[in-house]
Order: sequence, then C-alpha cells, then structure tokens
Amino acid sequence: MVLSESPPPHDRWIGMAIELAVNNVLSGHGGPFGAVVVRDGTLISEGTNVVTTQNDPTAHAEIVAIRRACEVLGTFELRDCVIYTSCEPCPMCLGAIYWARMEAVYFAATHQDASKSGFDDSFIYEEMVRPIAARKLKMIQVPLQGSNRSFEAWKAQPNRVND
Amino acid sequence: MVLSESPPPHDRWIGMAIELAVNNVLSGHGGPFGAVVVRDGTLISEGTNVVTTQNDPTAHAEIVAIRRACEVLGTFELRDCVIYTSCEPCPMCLGAIYWARMEAVYFAATHQDASKSGFDDSFIYEEMVRPIAARKLKMIQVPLQGSNRSFEAWKAQPNRVND
Repeated sequence: MVLSESPPPHDRWIGMAIELAVNNVLSGHGGPFGAVVVRDGTLISEGTNVVTTQNDPTAHAEIVAIRRACEVLGTFELRDCVIYTSCEPCPMCLGAIYWARMEAVYFAATHQDASKSGFDDSFIYEEMVRPIAARKLKMIQVPLQGSNRSFEAWKAQPNRVND
Repeated sequence: MVLSESPPPHDRWIGMAIELAVNNVLSGHGGPFGAVVVRDGTLISEGTNVVTTQNDPTAHAEIVAIRRACEVLGTFELRDCVIYTSCEPCPMCLGAIYWARMEAVYFAATHQDASKSGFDDSFIYEEMVRPIAARKLKMIQVPLQGSNRSFEAWKAQPNRVND
C-alpha cells in the first residue's frame, strides 16, 4: 500500500498562510501575518497584513482575506467557510470572523508568539472585559435626544436585513 | 451678553453621526449606524454601515470612517483623532479604534439599544472572554514546524514598523 504524500488538509492550508506571512515580510508589504479563506476544500481568497503600506489599520491578514472572500462569493456572510491564519486572531479580526459567521478558525502561532515580536493584542483583550469607565481608552456616552432615531427608522423599514 | 446658539461640540458631532445613521437607513444603504472622525474640531471623514450593500461584513460605520480618515490623512494611525459614533462600538470596531490609537470615543446609543433592534454584539463580547476551547466558535491551533518563521523573518528586517 502506498500512502499519499499529501499533507493533511489543515496542514496544507496553514502552511499556505505561513508562507504568505513570510513572503509578506520579505517583500516589504507589511507585518508577519497571512490568512486564507477556504470552502469545501477550495481556496477562496488570500490576505496578508498591509497596514503600513496601505495606510489602513484594519488591513490585518484575516480582514483582508474575509473582505476578498465576500467579494469573490458576492455575499456578506461566509457561513460555510473556514479561515486558516498564521497567527491567533486579534480581537478586531475575531470580531470580523463572528460577524461573517464563519464555520471555524485554524491558526498556527499563538498571540504569545506574536507578542514576542512586538505585536501585542493582549492589551485590547484586557480592555474589552473592563467596564467602559475603567478602560484606558476614553469612552464617553453623549446621550442626545433622538439617540435612537436611526433604530426607529430601521424598525419601520419593511425589507430590512440585520447584519 | 449674547450666548452662542451653537450646540456644544460633542453634541454637534454626535448629532452628525446620528443623522448619517438615519439617512443610511432611509436611503437603503445599510444598517442604522453612522460615525465621524474629527481632529482639532475639523471633520476628517464620515462612515455608515454598508455591510449588506457592499458585501463586506467589516464595513461597519466606524471601520468605514477610520479607513477613510487614514486615506485622507495618509497615515495608519489616528492618534490625535476622536471618533463620534451613533452607537457604542462592537468588539471588531473597538479593536480597530485601539489599533488606530485614537484619542477618544463618543457614542450616543448603547449596545443595549442596538440589541433591541436585532443588532446584538453581546454574544461576541461574551465569547472573547472565554478560553478558546470554551467558545462556540470552533478555534483550533495547528502547530506546524515553522509556525514562527514569519516572526523570525520579521525580526531580521532592519526597517520594520510594528503596527
């Protein structure tokens, strides 16, 4: 019996995400992060961190890959898709993964590994669990009359799609 | 003495964010959310939720406004900028606000208000504080040999910019 020499499927996609991350650094396009979106064993999109070269603080590998996958598939949800990423997602990217209703996340390095290279998102995770008033980020509610006007307009719309 | 009839500055910008949110619903462009980025009392950018019309689950009002502000200012950090948003930011947007190093967040409606209209991000906040293995979202580490290759490449780069 000849065993297949192909790597297990998760290893293949994670390997691709790591390769994207390495090449992103070597080409000077941005930080050491890569991600791919996969559906039914087929590659849908790739993404790398291009924050500093695109002047976009939201352009983490996962966000870039998710936005591209939605563009390719013509949808704003990726329910049957999986994301493979070279590193554990930060809170922003994790939020995007939840909003896109993705099926699963596979990652290689941990956020502790990222932290050792100067990419520390632990601070953001810690901030999020604090009550608003206890956060280091100044967050102030300005309760105006009519604060809920947009929600009222929304509820009056017949064909609304909550996202 | 004649008192100025201008509204207090925070009210003015929050009012603009709410107005953007209302108009976004009425024009059918997306969900009931609006945001503006302001620097030194000057409007830098506007954003509204265009998730369903742009097929982009990351296109929340705050993310759209942040990306545009960075484009306008030619930077990937908004250290001296403030964001005014019609509603308390979700975890994804809050993450983006931290990464952009913004100075402050002012918001009108609370996430409880949003929840009553079917926009419930409490679930995401709850998930984030759980250990990975206890989350409803399937998250699996695939530790490959070479998981840290991109970080090693990064540390070898002479002109790296951590973002």
